[in-house]
Amino acid sequence: MAKGPEYPSKVYLNGAIVDAGAATVSVFDRGFLFGDGIYEVMARINGRFFYQQAHMDRLKACLRKIDIDYDADTLEEAIPSLLEASGVSGKDCMLYIQITRGVAPRQHAYPPGIRPTALMYAWEKALPDINRGLAKVVTREDFRWSRCDIKMTSLLGNVMANQYAMEQQCYETLFVRDGVVTEASHCNVFFVKDGVVYTHPANTSILDGITRQVVLELCGSLGLEVRLQGVAASDLHGMDEAFLTGTSTQVMAISEIDGKPVGIGSAGPVTRRLQEAFLDLKTAP
Amino acid sequence: MAKGPEYPSKVYLNGAIVDAGAATVSVFDRGFLFGDGIYEVMARINGRFFYQQAHMDRLKACLRKIDIDYDADTLEEAIPSLLEASGVSGKDCMLYIQITRGVAPRQHAYPPGIRPTALMYAWEKALPDINRGLAKVVTREDFRWSRCDIKMTSLLGNVMANQYAMEQQCYETLFVRDGVVTEASHCNVFFVKDGVVYTHPANTSILDGITRQVVLELCGSLGLEVRLQGVAASDLHGMDEAFLTGTSTQVMAISEIDGKPVGIGSAGPVTRRLQEAFLDLKTAP
Repeated sequence: MAKGPEYPSKVYLNGAIVDAGAATVSVFDRGFLFGDGIYEVMARINGRFFYQQAHMDRLKACLRKIDIDYDADTLEEAIPSLLEASGVSGKDCMLYIQITRGVAPRQHAYPPGIRPTALMYAWEKALPDINRGLAKVVTREDFRWSRCDIKMTSLLGNVMANQYAMEQQCYETLFVRDGVVTEASHCNVFFVKDGVVYTHPANTSILDGITRQVVLELCGSLGLEVRLQGVAASDLHGMDEAFLTGTSTQVMAISEIDGKPVGIGSAGPVTRRLQEAFLDLKTAP
Repeated sequence: MAKGPEYPSKVYLNGAIVDAGAATVSVFDRGFLFGDGIYEVMARINGRFFYQQAHMDRLKACLRKIDIDYDADTLEEAIPSLLEASGVSGKDCMLYIQITRGVAPRQHAYPPGIRPTALMYAWEKALPDINRGLAKVVTREDFRWSRCDIKMTSLLGNVMANQYAMEQQCYETLFVRDGVVTEASHCNVFFVKDGVVYTHPANTSILDGITRQVVLELCGSLGLEVRLQGVAASDLHGMDEAFLTGTSTQVMAISEIDGKPVGIGSAGPVTRRLQEAFLDLKTAP
């Protein structure tokens, strides 16, 4: 396992850039009291944020879905100065963005006109050209809510599932809802069987990952047949290949599911083709 | 509707009592980043917290369920000084308690050994002897997770459902899971039909409210037949009576469900008997 994450040096908070250690919010922030917020994570690769527009569009869509009125364009404009203050201006880095509904006396329903809280921070991180890691995963009943299309900060279910994986020395937990694999605790999941690529359709049971969308486009470019269809948990051990996708995970082969090897137990041919194509996309001018 | 809530004057935060306006947590608190925490609300009535032991036991049970190691007894010992600092020492008041996993660099799984964040605050509030309000409610598919037995702060689903009710000038949303009414966004719900009292069993689909438990005991004392059984949404409009329970809601009759009156459209005889018995309990020496 890679070493754990570290704090960034600086944090953008409601228009100001402050030391991370001094970045605080009121205990009455609805992000703290209710998990009432949404977030995004973007990777800066070779001098540009990868699919920045798609990430910002999703962030705006999520704000609308939970009825937070916030001008995300202002936030986007503040990114360069945050990167500079954080000492990562010319470097590959990750950017975390979170917007909560803001500060108000506690009650479930929200009052009109409160000012959302906006948080951003960046940390230096160079993603590998290709993620050659092999993910062991476990499966578990999907006990989360049924609006997984919202990238919200009410993440206790995802936290518990990810912790469950870690405690078994695994990278991820695959969720199974009504007998079908939906996604993982912070990744999407794909399977390959007889040359056909399977992934769950982007409905309210999964978060429609940007990397997921990119990989689906790449499948098209490569002439791979795709079925937007969840794989039954009972069929998992017959899959030829399986892989995870995510902003920092990129495209990562799954080697084991619940202790049993998948396919050849390392990145299969379709996974490798997609990893190469993904790398081409990242390094394209 | 009653006027909205206000901020308390003082806040207990990690051992210190501070002005509410100065009570802040790090943006890296997992309560803020992940909704990774649990909470309780207690009412002080006639000089004592009503069912304090049951509330504190549930708080400890929830801490265990999400694997937060925190000594809640210490917190309980700090309540009197918080009440005094808040100017509510001799008064009826409400107390909010929240414990989050604490501050750490962001990643879903949690590192060992981080110090939980503990928040408490009290505000003056005298609950009515009997809640004579009449609740209009709406129904909605239960889209929350399936661990509703955990009183967690990842509450966006409950927030959305409560807001949905408010926007229709209703007090609550009744959740319907697999065709059966489970509970409301921040209350439990009971029904009466042909003299029998129905409420959903306390499994992982509902939060086992302390007031719910008290009302069930009262049903026993009053010789009322109880079935721990959820009512089908399709049977709702044939119910003789319906009422909500909760720490600040107490026992509140439901007058309308989805715009249609329930029973006589005000507190029916069983609801009234339970309200009276609940009052007796509150005023017992």
